[in-house]
Amino acid sequence: MRLNKIGEFALIEKFKKMADLDRSVIVGPGDDCAVIEFNKNDYQLYTCDMIVEGVDFVSKDKPELIGRKALAVSLSDIAACGGIPRYAVVSMGFPKKSIGKAQKIAKGLFDLAKSYKVNVVGGDLSRSNRLTIDVSMLGVVEKNKLVLRSGAKSGDIIFVTGELGRSILGKHLTFTPRLKESRFLVNNFKINSMIDISDGLTQDLNHILKASNVGAAIYEALIPRSRLARSLADALYGGEEFELLFTLSRKEAKHLAFKKKHIFKPIGEIISKDYGFRLIDKNNKESVIKPKGWRHF
Amino acid sequence: MRLNKIGEFALIEKFKKMADLDRSVIVGPGDDCAVIEFNKNDYQLYTCDMIVEGVDFVSKDKPELIGRKALAVSLSDIAACGGIPRYAVVSMGFPKKSIGKAQKIAKGLFDLAKSYKVNVVGGDLSRSNRLTIDVSMLGVVEKNKLVLRSGAKSGDIIFVTGELGRSILGKHLTFTPRLKESRFLVNNFKINSMIDISDGLTQDLNHILKASNVGAAIYEALIPRSRLARSLADALYGGEEFELLFTLSRKEAKHLAFKKKHIFKPIGEIISKDYGFRLIDKNNKESVIKPKGWRHF
Repeated sequence: MRLNKIGEFALIEKFKKMADLDRSVIVGPGDDCAVIEFNKNDYQLYTCDMIVEGVDFVSKDKPELIGRKALAVSLSDIAACGGIPRYAVVSMGFPKKSIGKAQKIAKGLFDLAKSYKVNVVGGDLSRSNRLTIDVSMLGVVEKNKLVLRSGAKSGDIIFVTGELGRSILGKHLTFTPRLKESRFLVNNFKINSMIDISDGLTQDLNHILKASNVGAAIYEALIPRSRLARSLADALYGGEEFELLFTLSRKEAKHLAFKKKHIFKPIGEIISKDYGFRLIDKNNKESVIKPKGWRHF
Repeated sequence: MRLNKIGEFALIEKFKKMADLDRSVIVGPGDDCAVIEFNKNDYQLYTCDMIVEGVDFVSKDKPELIGRKALAVSLSDIAACGGIPRYAVVSMGFPKKSIGKAQKIAKGLFDLAKSYKVNVVGGDLSRSNRLTIDVSMLGVVEKNKLVLRSGAKSGDIIFVTGELGRSILGKHLTFTPRLKESRFLVNNFKINSMIDISDGLTQDLNHILKASNVGAAIYEALIPRSRLARSLADALYGGEEFELLFTLSRKEAKHLAFKKKHIFKPIGEIISKDYGFRLIDKNNKESVIKPKGWRHF
């Protein structure tokens, strides 16, 4: 069977069923991070992300930005769970040709690590015909501040950080992981669900809807679209935005919108599951959203 | 500059200098695992290993064994530090062609994880023209049982588990990570230094010598050579044996040899640094060893 027929997400489901997890695992595969019992007050967060030349970047991209991205995508996963990044290990496979590039990649990665106080404590170098970097990261989160995809409730308001639709124009290499915003949110509000936009707004919101067993309406007029976005489709379906998408109760949302309206934009609301997932356009017309976005296969 | 000129180990040294580590990091890059402060009694161990098609396995190898190896090499790193493996995350990049193979790889990996009670808590799937698997693993070790490469002392006896010289005949895919042996050792003896043989006996012993600032003599007649080894060179230089190589005081060594002589074989002794690193042949003739073995570049 070809992978694109069964689909990436179905394969992940199959793998999830193979895992045999003990009681120290609070959340296994399927959220932005795994969550592991750590100490009385905190959980440990654990995630990994592989980036591959020709898929996640191209060979002419600046090597410093490639290394930066390799670490930034994992930082974004930690942010999506409300946590603080602490440690990383890095595996790099690259062609025999030159070390100049590998050193520049490492510089981009280590510089970003330093700015977020992440300890890069180990690594593995391997030969590979295409540049491949896999970062695994450990973080920590207070038990009462952990946010998952599965906590969205009917009535919640859906928010997004930043503007969407210019990932393809280079933002996927230069984005700032939303760690500061994530900590502001979990320190000051009861966030019911959160995810980072890596597959695309509709697809990632759909991950929240499925995990939380709810529906949603989003409003075309409210989607914060970058001046550089070519179309609404870019904002709805473009992957690798690495903005945070989250939901919180209407009451909490009022406080948030009042406090930080320039950063956090409401785009819709969580509704019961029967409603499905719909877009409401500028003329108030509803249409069913078929979640789509980036898939690896 | 070409990578094979500067060498893999020199590049690792360069990367180590870029890392900015806080005080919670007990051991950073350069040992079999990173060691991180965990709780009053224990450290956390953290490691990663990437395997790539055409380098660490070939496409005709059984997919279950490829998946098994991806996890086993990290288990071996945890064993080398005296620890117990606990959690892993797995990134896999593979071609668009088929999912059948990916599922078999996953089966091999999950089966081995289960038998060592390792929780596979997350992963990432990516497209890649060559099959690439990166496993990162967390383990735990009691503070007083942690073993590093850097603790060898002049007068120590050098031991190895199992027989050497048949990695190339397939053992690199089917080896049993020496976790049981490692725990037996740290539970019953004061082990001064340990490493797993991944680069080759002489190269890995040389890692211990450098980290511990000592020299060594090993005896040709004592090297436990597999019946299937084609030559002494296979046993001295063959990579991916994944046996444990360790040192302990002469007094401790006597107890060990008495107790478990069938598993743990003495092969030489640690000597002061001035002596260098020498092989003593069957006619008692000494020759300087040039450590060599597997290098990725």
